[in-house]
Amino acid sequence: MASKIEGIFTPTLAPLNSRGEINETELRRYVSWLIDRGVHGLYPNGSSGEFTRFTAEERLRIGAIVCDVARGRVPVLAGAAEANIKETLAACEAYAKMGARAVAIVSPFYYRLAPDAVYAYFAEIARDSPIDVTLYNIPMFASPITVDTVRRLAELPRVIGIKDSSGDVAFMMRMISAVRPLRPDFSFLTGWEAVLAPMIMIGCDGGTNASSNAVPEVTRKIYELARAGAYTEAMQWNYRLLRLFDAMLDKFEFPDGFKYATELRGFNFGPSRRPLSDAQRADRSLLESDVKRALSDLVEPAPAPTAAVLQLERDQIAALVQEVVSQLDRRGLL
Amino acid sequence: MASKIEGIFTPTLAPLNSRGEINETELRRYVSWLIDRGVHGLYPNGSSGEFTRFTAEERLRIGAIVCDVARGRVPVLAGAAEANIKETLAACEAYAKMGARAVAIVSPFYYRLAPDAVYAYFAEIARDSPIDVTLYNIPMFASPITVDTVRRLAELPRVIGIKDSSGDVAFMMRMISAVRPLRPDFSFLTGWEAVLAPMIMIGCDGGTNASSNAVPEVTRKIYELARAGAYTEAMQWNYRLLRLFDAMLDKFEFPDGFKYATELRGFNFGPSRRPLSDAQRADRSLLESDVKRALSDLVEPAPAPTAAVLQLERDQIAALVQEVVSQLDRRGLL
Amino acid sequence: MASKIEGIFTPTLAPLNSRGEINETELRRYVSWLIDRGVHGLYPNGSSGEFTRFTAEERLRIGAIVCDVARGRVPVLAGAAEANIKETLAACEAYAKMGARAVAIVSPFYYRLAPDAVYAYFAEIARDSPIDVTLYNIPMFASPITVDTVRRLAELPRVIGIKDSSGDVAFMMRMISAVRPLRPDFSFLTGWEAVLAPMIMIGCDGGTNASSNAVPEVTRKIYELARAGAYTEAMQWNYRLLRLFDAMLDKFEFPDGFKYATELRGFNFGPSRRPLSDAQRADRSLLESDVKRALSDLVEPAPAPTAAVLQLERDQIAALVQEVVSQLDRRGLL
Amino acid sequence: MASKIEGIFTPTLAPLNSRGEINETELRRYVSWLIDRGVHGLYPNGSSGEFTRFTAEERLRIGAIVCDVARGRVPVLAGAAEANIKETLAACEAYAKMGARAVAIVSPFYYRLAPDAVYAYFAEIARDSPIDVTLYNIPMFASPITVDTVRRLAELPRVIGIKDSSGDVAFMMRMISAVRPLRPDFSFLTGWEAVLAPMIMIGCDGGTNASSNAVPEVTRKIYELARAGAYTEAMQWNYRLLRLFDAMLDKFEFPDGFKYATELRGFNFGPSRRPLSDAQRADRSLLESDVKRALSDLVEPAPAPTAAVLQLERDQIAALVQEVVSQLDRRGLL
Repeated sequence: MASKIEGIFTPTLAPLNSRGEINETELRRYVSWLIDRGVHGLYPNGSSGEFTRFTAEERLRIGAIVCDVARGRVPVLAGAAEANIKETLAACEAYAKMGARAVAIVSPFYYRLAPDAVYAYFAEIARDSPIDVTLYNIPMFASPITVDTVRRLAELPRVIGIKDSSGDVAFMMRMISAVRPLRPDFSFLTGWEAVLAPMIMIGCDGGTNASSNAVPEVTRKIYELARAGAYTEAMQWNYRLLRLFDAMLDKFEFPDGFKYATELRGFNFGPSRRPLSDAQRADRSLLESDVKRALSDLVEPAPAPTAAVLQLERDQIAALVQEVVSQLDRRGLL
Repeated sequence: MASKIEGIFTPTLAPLNSRGEINETELRRYVSWLIDRGVHGLYPNGSSGEFTRFTAEERLRIGAIVCDVARGRVPVLAGAAEANIKETLAACEAYAKMGARAVAIVSPFYYRLAPDAVYAYFAEIARDSPIDVTLYNIPMFASPITVDTVRRLAELPRVIGIKDSSGDVAFMMRMISAVRPLRPDFSFLTGWEAVLAPMIMIGCDGGTNASSNAVPEVTRKIYELARAGAYTEAMQWNYRLLRLFDAMLDKFEFPDGFKYATELRGFNFGPSRRPLSDAQRADRSLLESDVKRALSDLVEPAPAPTAAVLQLERDQIAALVQEVVSQLDRRGLL
Repeated sequence: MASKIEGIFTPTLAPLNSRGEINETELRRYVSWLIDRGVHGLYPNGSSGEFTRFTAEERLRIGAIVCDVARGRVPVLAGAAEANIKETLAACEAYAKMGARAVAIVSPFYYRLAPDAVYAYFAEIARDSPIDVTLYNIPMFASPITVDTVRRLAELPRVIGIKDSSGDVAFMMRMISAVRPLRPDFSFLTGWEAVLAPMIMIGCDGGTNASSNAVPEVTRKIYELARAGAYTEAMQWNYRLLRLFDAMLDKFEFPDGFKYATELRGFNFGPSRRPLSDAQRADRSLLESDVKRALSDLVEPAPAPTAAVLQLERDQIAALVQEVVSQLDRRGLL
Repeated sequence: MASKIEGIFTPTLAPLNSRGEINETELRRYVSWLIDRGVHGLYPNGSSGEFTRFTAEERLRIGAIVCDVARGRVPVLAGAAEANIKETLAACEAYAKMGARAVAIVSPFYYRLAPDAVYAYFAEIARDSPIDVTLYNIPMFASPITVDTVRRLAELPRVIGIKDSSGDVAFMMRMISAVRPLRPDFSFLTGWEAVLAPMIMIGCDGGTNASSNAVPEVTRKIYELARAGAYTEAMQWNYRLLRLFDAMLDKFEFPDGFKYATELRGFNFGPSRRPLSDAQRADRSLLESDVKRALSDLVEPAPAPTAAVLQLERDQIAALVQEVVSQLDRRGLL
């Protein structure tokens, strides 16, 4: 039987090259760095990964790269929500073959569905999926998943957990209260690291936290301290993390602030797929100072790259490295 | 110079066959019926068309069929929002080649963007699109488009109108007040037929109304009466339409009620891509009686098909016709 | 049988003297001016009248003054919502004795009640009130009154109308559709003058509009034009009114913008009972220029009073006049 | 210097007699019982106390009784929000004389004020109040108090704490983070006992929790366990409390469920000032069974009184006792 999902699963960001395509080299380098820094698992194609801004083919490619880098090191929860049930099940099959531990399916979005319809959607996927399924509740963007819906879905063996990004501690307690007695193996993960330590304290099994891109050491530390019952120290770190979290969240369109902060750790994520206004371009340097300050309170930032020059060099190097990597890949040496 | 967008543009529904694929034969038959019944234009791949539940390829196919049926008869506004700017511009080019009058682009959804980011998104599309663009504001599902954003976007010649589904008459007046003095050719279309006559009275140029699928005669009549200044009679019809509209909207997940009502006019739209719960299956016949009653107050329904039998026959005929059509299509004869 | 409530009922503002007490002289002068300018009725102690910022005794005093000035000239709808049913019924009795045409009762606020509880609240008042009752729906501030609740309450003879400040034209149509067939005497008044002409067009009987304080001539003109079926001209005025309405609404805490604009007609409403921040004090002159511009497009403003000096004089005069008036009042000569 | 506000302050309920007046005898008996059961303080005239449903005089009387019973035993936070600043300051003075530890002022309600206006309101009260002031943030009912507003208000020495009923743990962390470094004496109290233990864990000083009316022993236990760092045991109790909390909250209009549960401890709170619908009357017994079940998991309920008979007896006794008490009161012997 597969092990329970526990720990911090990083919802990975999506690096692009200067042409706006997936920067596979940088994606590999950055995901590998995350694993080295101690994240417990990876979660590509979530909200942090801007899954809605990629084509179905690109999402599959991103998932494949992350699975490839993670293989034998950490488990992968692959975001597999597609346009409809049929396409979603096809993605589930693909991720099963790639060796993902489970898929994560965001609640239906655009249309806001009633609880009964949300249940029917997940139930149909769970019935036919060849891979374990985790639910993804993010009520600010998608149809809310109610406590009762989680309880009913937990009766299906393929459904093994939920990621909740509401940040509502009482709601998480209600879910745990309703489901854990029946399914002790069911995982509860919080997507709201502002309250990571309290969430662990009430019984969560971990988190899928955008901040773990920028400061994987810190989210892991909070997780471990809280799991060990060292709440006072965990909270000291959680308060420091909160400052960074708010700096990344408040003044940027999500997930831009998290990308900027992660770039400060030594990566180049390239241009956004979301067009920036002139004002947003002008504001970026200003806004970033908050992020930098909060980040430097937590970790040692990487030396700042000289932007324009580096961008050029990097793309050239990236192309070269990518070529080598894919050669090795084709020959089965990766 | 192209003519102003005016009248009732039907946001078309998406018929499926028993395998859940686009039922092209039924789509052609139903769209042709809409034109015969007097709709002024067609709008495939909107919210009524469940655009998010189809793949990019399917959306293009639906748009192509609608453009094909409409050719030389009525103009088409093709819903062209794709995963990102690059894909959206590719869809714009495709629809330009198919002869669409313009594309309609829904405001960015899932992530809720600030006004400045909404502006930047549409501005980048408008700068490069080879076809006229209409904005689509539906704040209950997507990032709201503010009055000021519309005013700024109206400075771009490619942006020729807005469809607003908020149903807020004062908001529509604010947009008209801000834009019409500068751009008399800019179209204002309401997506909320509950208030169709008042919207025409305050100066709207028409509507893209899901109800025009079920009762194209009625939405046209309200439009024409209101445009002619016959508000008293227009309102009598609008009050009767409101009962049907509410019956289709209140008890169903959107756009199911509109699909059921349109089927009562003699079509078979097949199974939904959204899984139904057992309760929803059981409720359907009960709920439909409200729709039937409201519909029969407005138009003569088609003789009720004997469901199961007809379904079988129809799918068989559809498969046959579809086969012939696609043979012709492959040989370039369509 | 009492006549139906129709026309524009002004929700009166509450002038204060420099000590922050009700400025009775100015209240009489201003209410009398409203009647001279053609308002069809008066509505003291509504949201515009800041009823929550006065004591029960002060509310009664304001109502008494307005009833006194209005006597024999226009009907009064007196806002009578008090802390609980018993106190509310006492206010109803008092207003009945003062000769008010009816009372207006805002839906329960602070706690947000379910529809059934809203019904029970109004039903109990309607059962025992010695005076006709109008419902007041303002969902942004108080428990929403649903269409079904209005329909059920319309079965009680004491309930004779509703003022709705939602501004939702479709909602108003739904209420009219549900109630008018059973109660043709039931009044529908809109509190959202942004859409005054459309509301009359769909069948409303009038409005209780804060703007009618500042421009009573204009709200009356829109009402009369629309009732006469002259919608084109009515809409021209409605568009001009909208600019003033938005200027008064957008940048001020409600109802401050409406008070400032009405002061420009030649009144002095004194300090607010709501403390202003330093920023708000500094902004006022800046913000007022928008109001002034929009106002001067509609009516001739009064010559600007020389603030400080006038304030002094006026208070002195007011005190004097007030003294005389209350002497006469005590002797029963008013 | 006065001591910091810490522990569980019970937001007291308001017992009425069969005539709907304050049942002073039962109020004294019940408040005394709360103190005996270990609550750290009392908070009359909050949302649980239905302050909006009483007259200003009644609120003062309730506050006086609670202060009287509490004298020398536990501190009192008296809810002192009145119609306007002048009336509120008068209430502050009255509560200062009655020996209250501080007043609690709910953020302005009905009108939803901008942060700057909320600041100005509290700042003016804090400037002139003769007694310490705690802020009361309950965004579902009143204008929200932002983190920045709390930070600015914490610069005023009279402002000594905040009660927050949002239940948002991250928001509480943000407030503590912004204020505690400058004002270590400033109290943070949660009004959302669903997350009482996590709130203490992140640094809250206590709570003002409606549930402490029904189960004062349990809220105290959770508080003490959490303050002692015994989080595991604290959470076990918190989970059990959550079931009762939800039973009291979900199916009743607030605070009715809390009143029913507290009556099960042996009190008679009489009829509600909020009229019940027929449906609500019929549902009560049904709904109460959930509350009873959850309550009996936590404490031993009092033997159920034989309703009708007891009611009569009690009112008679109450009238008698009340007469004696008020005689003593008039003679200054209480």
